[in-house]
Amino acid sequence: MKSDLDTLMQSKNLDAILVIGNATHNPPMYYLTGGGHVSAATLLKKRGAPAVLYCNDMERDEAAKSGLQVIPYSTYNYEELLKEAGGDPALAAALRYQRIFTDQGVRGRVGVYGHTEVGSALAVFDHLRRRMPDLELVGETRDGSLFMYAMETKDEAEAARIRKMGRVTTTVVGRVAEWLTGSPVREDEVLLKEDGSPLTIGDVRARINLWLAELGAENPEGCIFAIGRDAGVPHSVGADGDPLRLGQTIVFDIYPCEAGGGYFYDFTRTWSLGYAVPEAQRLYEEVKAVYDKVVAALTPNAPFKDYQKLVCEEFEKNGHPTPLHTQAPLEGYVHSLGHGVGLNVHERPWSGLTAADDNLLKPGVVVTIEPGLYYPEKGMGVRIEDTYWVRPDGRIEKLADYPYDFVLPMKHWRP
Amino acid sequence: MKSDLDTLMQSKNLDAILVIGNATHNPPMYYLTGGGHVSAATLLKKRGAPAVLYCNDMERDEAAKSGLQVIPYSTYNYEELLKEAGGDPALAAALRYQRIFTDQGVRGRVGVYGHTEVGSALAVFDHLRRRMPDLELVGETRDGSLFMYAMETKDEAEAARIRKMGRVTTTVVGRVAEWLTGSPVREDEVLLKEDGSPLTIGDVRARINLWLAELGAENPEGCIFAIGRDAGVPHSVGADGDPLRLGQTIVFDIYPCEAGGGYFYDFTRTWSLGYAVPEAQRLYEEVKAVYDKVVAALTPNAPFKDYQKLVCEEFEKNGHPTPLHTQAPLEGYVHSLGHGVGLNVHERPWSGLTAADDNLLKPGVVVTIEPGLYYPEKGMGVRIEDTYWVRPDGRIEKLADYPYDFVLPMKHWRP
Repeated sequence: MKSDLDTLMQSKNLDAILVIGNATHNPPMYYLTGGGHVSAATLLKKRGAPAVLYCNDMERDEAAKSGLQVIPYSTYNYEELLKEAGGDPALAAALRYQRIFTDQGVRGRVGVYGHTEVGSALAVFDHLRRRMPDLELVGETRDGSLFMYAMETKDEAEAARIRKMGRVTTTVVGRVAEWLTGSPVREDEVLLKEDGSPLTIGDVRARINLWLAELGAENPEGCIFAIGRDAGVPHSVGADGDPLRLGQTIVFDIYPCEAGGGYFYDFTRTWSLGYAVPEAQRLYEEVKAVYDKVVAALTPNAPFKDYQKLVCEEFEKNGHPTPLHTQAPLEGYVHSLGHGVGLNVHERPWSGLTAADDNLLKPGVVVTIEPGLYYPEKGMGVRIEDTYWVRPDGRIEKLADYPYDFVLPMKHWRP
Repeated sequence: MKSDLDTLMQSKNLDAILVIGNATHNPPMYYLTGGGHVSAATLLKKRGAPAVLYCNDMERDEAAKSGLQVIPYSTYNYEELLKEAGGDPALAAALRYQRIFTDQGVRGRVGVYGHTEVGSALAVFDHLRRRMPDLELVGETRDGSLFMYAMETKDEAEAARIRKMGRVTTTVVGRVAEWLTGSPVREDEVLLKEDGSPLTIGDVRARINLWLAELGAENPEGCIFAIGRDAGVPHSVGADGDPLRLGQTIVFDIYPCEAGGGYFYDFTRTWSLGYAVPEAQRLYEEVKAVYDKVVAALTPNAPFKDYQKLVCEEFEKNGHPTPLHTQAPLEGYVHSLGHGVGLNVHERPWSGLTAADDNLLKPGVVVTIEPGLYYPEKGMGVRIEDTYWVRPDGRIEKLADYPYDFVLPMKHWRP
């Protein structure tokens, strides 16, 4: 949580943190500013002190909404800096950092964060390191970074926002199911639109985006709506031109966030419209059984990867390849069980077999549980996913309910 | 254009370029891969050779849509790398880069690009620099980077995509105008919704997002819909809770992109609903006159900042402060005339008075022309903006037409 930042800085031996970039679609900056129309900002926080936000003068009103102390960049005359830098904008930016750091009394080890242009940052930091050799600019890999640790546990207010996104998500999923099952079906089992042309994945995707926007969400990462062979490749998003057909597995994985780049939700159902072939039905039942087993076993403070191991063992009993004994399998169970969800669609804690031991189901974490089985050569794949919050009281709360039907009966078609 | 990349690499003395991050909302990666659901990818291009794309195994099908040679990360056993790195994921990533660079025969100066986590990149590159001291990893500031130069000029296909986004944008703007002018008006000149409650900026924003989604666009940067004093602060996006009122300047600046993080359009109109106060009317006419003067003067290959100077001089004649003789003015004309538009909502060429001399209206550039005048203390601001393409034949094409009415008559209200 945000209140952990100073402790985390201490444990990572950081004297200050520097966050750069826009306030939207930049999780560390969003986390500390609350988002808004603030671009190319600089946030500086010394350990034990409140953060200070530097921004373009034009965006001062937007920046002030963060509640932080706001200082406009014009405090430092850019034209003079550029002259001093001999016209090199990277050096001019470094000179501005140098003045900011000096004015704020920042020294020692400074952690660097932000989702922005890496080339630009590298150019500026290379100059800054030469100008301030006593300052140590420290990068951390994203997955183990200070912010990933701080953001890992969510308070009531954050969980409420994710829960609300869960309602938005499942509402849209429900509308898609309603729409598809009410569509007419051609003799060759292709779904049709009102105008008599085939209903395609592109049509579904457009409708999903529309409904999400209507409900105050955005879809920055797209979504997966994959049928047949594509459903058997976990991260294939599906081909927009493909028509929807009965009796094929459809993996529908949807992970929108609050408009403006806020909190995400992550959710998957697998459907077979009208009927299911027996092999797909069996696959679905296997995945559902393992899903239920995992959910029943979830225990606060347990290592997340213990459940990945459980899933692998269960699937291997039935003869499916898994990462437990196959390197990078292309069929069977081919990914990890889940991940944290927050301002990042994927964040701590991690569940992979090689995840560090501190990836625990601590009170406060919000995680997905998403086992699946994939057989692209057989033209099928199945995944079931919900998002859970480990509440402060230790209870495990599914953040949005939605039925687990695999076969969705068609209103205008009978087997 | 993309075909300029090798020449640009030569002029910047780069032996190779390295692009990292996702394929969406990451302009350099989108530019070379065409977007799609490919995350945390690595693209490597040696000068004079085609690019090679490394990606997670699960995303191999999506990556293949780029038409590039795709190599899955599993070519390098991550668990072994992590073991060799003593469990340090930053070093493990650096070791993988080292193997990739060695296998591809990359040496010398390598330019680094991508919109992704800077802290993570810094950690990995610090290791890589120690491991490969002969390799020179070069950052460039975004605005002058190789990609900004390559992307600066657009071919017919790119211009067609931006033109299409222009149609989407102006369609949405037209719908907003139609909706607002058809709304009932309360005695105190506040617009009302059908249910009799005040129509707010938040309502307008939600409707804009809905219509954009419906038309295949997304709105990753939000939009500006600012009324009264907020309209006088150029980058204030407007307060969602504020009701719409007659007779106040409304700055409506909208800059959506193709769904999936593709090409942007950028457009602004200023409206006064029902009637205008004389001072706002005069302000509008001044801005429109300067806008017309600039557009009539646009000449291929001219320095973009010449027009910024022209605008400053014109506004100063009428007594408005401008950046020509006032540092960072807070009222009058307070920004620069325009900017390039493409996969970035702001990109080369730049028009600021301090912009480098090579920011020209070269054939192929797509630029905004957006003069404005701002008086926050008077509660008013005006901006007019369209996006223009300097065609290969030298003709200047406005990419979307839309009327320039300032006062929008209300259907159910008379002065």
